[in-house]
Order: sequence, then C-alpha cells, then structure tokens
Amino acid sequence: MISDYLKNSVTRVPDYPKAGIQFRDITSLVADGRAFAEAVTALAEPYLSQAVDKVVGIEARGFVFGAALARELGVGLALARKPGKLPRATCRETYTLEYGEDALHMHLDALEPESRVLLVDDLIATGGTALAALRLVRQLGASPIGAAFVIALPELGGLAALQRQRVATHHLMEFAGE
Amino acid sequence: MISDYLKNSVTRVPDYPKAGIQFRDITSLVADGRAFAEAVTALAEPYLSQAVDKVVGIEARGFVFGAALARELGVGLALARKPGKLPRATCRETYTLEYGEDALHMHLDALEPESRVLLVDDLIATGGTALAALRLVRQLGASPIGAAFVIALPELGGLAALQRQRVATHHLMEFAGE
Repeated sequence: MISDYLKNSVTRVPDYPKAGIQFRDITSLVADGRAFAEAVTALAEPYLSQAVDKVVGIEARGFVFGAALARELGVGLALARKPGKLPRATCRETYTLEYGEDALHMHLDALEPESRVLLVDDLIATGGTALAALRLVRQLGASPIGAAFVIALPELGGLAALQRQRVATHHLMEFAGE
Repeated sequence: MISDYLKNSVTRVPDYPKAGIQFRDITSLVADGRAFAEAVTALAEPYLSQAVDKVVGIEARGFVFGAALARELGVGLALARKPGKLPRATCRETYTLEYGEDALHMHLDALEPESRVLLVDDLIATGGTALAALRLVRQLGASPIGAAFVIALPELGGLAALQRQRVATHHLMEFAGE
C-alpha cells in the first residue's frame, strides 16, 4: 500500500494533451524528495527477493525511475531510446501512435543473452511503448522477468497486454483511463 | 580519484555524430552496475556536507544521473526538458546549436525561491545547455550551488563559462575535446 501523500504528489492536468484527456504528471512526484523516495522503495520491493541482472528504462521519464531503481537494486540501467539518440549499432522496434508510428532502439550490446531484465516506465496506458521495449529485450536474447510502473491506467489495456506476453507487472497506483 | 574501471566503462565512438568527433558514450557506464554505483557515489561526494534542496537534471541523460544523485542525497529531482514535453506552464531559455537553436523548459513551480539547487548532466562540452539550465534556475528565483558532470571536455569552454557565472563545478573525468 502506498501513502495518500505519494498518490497526491501526482498532478492531474485537465485537457492535456487535448480536450477530455486528464494527464497524470509525475514531475511533481519526482521533485518531492519524500514522494520520490517512497515511490522508488515501493517500486523495488517485489524485486528485492528476485535475481534481477539489469533494469531497462524507457525514454525519457522511464530513465528517472529506472536509474533510481537500478541503484536501489544494485544493478545497471540499459536505455531504450527514441530514434537517432544512440551512437552505436542498435536493434529497433516500432509501435503505433494515434497518428503514425514511432520506434524505440537499444544498443546491440545493451543486454547479455539470458540476463534477467526488469522493464521500467512512469506510466502504462495502451502499452505500445512497453510492448516495443519488451520485443527489444527478447530480440537481444534476454529474459524479461517483470515490468514496473508508477501509474497504470488499466482500462486502456496495456497491463493486460503485457500479462498476455507472460510478463508479471507491478504498479503503485491506478487511475481511470479517462 | 575515480577507478580505471569507471573511466574505461565509457565507450569512445569515433566519427560520431560526424567525422573527426569522438563521441563519449555513457550508456555502457550506466549499464554496468559497478561503474554506475561508483559514478553516483563520486558525483554525490562533494555535496554530502552541503545543504542541497533539489537536483535539476537536464534531458535526457541528465535524468539518469540526476535521479540517482537525488536519491543518494535524499532530495527531489526537477526536470529541465526539451520543448513540448512538460504539461503545465513553464519558463524557457534558448541556447545555440551548431546550426540554429534549441530550448529548455522547466515548470514554473519546479523550484522553490531561494532553494539550493544542484545541476546535473552527463557531459559538459561548450556548456550551452548547462548555461540555459542555470538561467532557468535563476529565473525561478532559486540558488544554483553547483553543477556536476560525469565527463568534462574542458577545452570546449563550458566548465570555465559556468565558473564565470560563479557556479562551482565538479566532474569525474576529462577527455580532450577532439
């Protein structure tokens, strides 16, 4: 169970990025030392008793929680980045946006084959980016043992889609997907 | 003094992003749990005895070190982001690129007036982005007490430019600015 303090540290932004959408802004959570500490501790908790070899953080808010979680678990952080950001040879997976598509890349040497990997992002909605990151992890021959999020919008289907891919998910709070 | 292990964990990428430039790639450092731990400990060291109220991380690699450093110091992390990424009202500072210009934004409530702020990024070269972040911190009425980087390329002038702005700098390793 997380505290009301932590849940209230997320800012609701009405009508962003467009009318009718309530954006859940985690910048206020991260900027609050007490809330950030609680979030990182709670994110790490299920994994303290499991062997995790590497955290994968999804650009860019996933880098914030991924880096803190990697330090909490005493492991390294591999970066899943937008196109054009990584300087060496990468593998690539695309995902669909409302209009068009985008892609995530990881360096070909970012993960060791068969290493146990934990995916991290701030929020899961439809799961497009998390599923692309999952495919990258599998392309690299590593084993995704879980996916952790600060916020889930379960109505949008991303959590269920990850679970159908046999990935155990963990999240700290839920909101309706309005 | 940092270890050779840490220094060797940075990958040199020749001719990236263009011929004649040696890119210093920290993704291999971050992905290595031992190197990442040493880097975060060494980045934090000068600040353990100072009152730091908030870390400011510069998008996107600065989020990785900024988040880990914020946890190490037990404070929050405020985000300095590229245009179009923050959902609420922001202040904005531009900086010059080789061709054209870019900008950084921070939420107007990201820092408390007179709070003591530590800027963090992975690398300082000419210092354009760090100086823009510094101007944002000052716009918000906060007090920049230092700027920490994993890598400095001192020949490119950014460290000196920050020092001329009366900001104490700290970095873990240097490379020639070729």
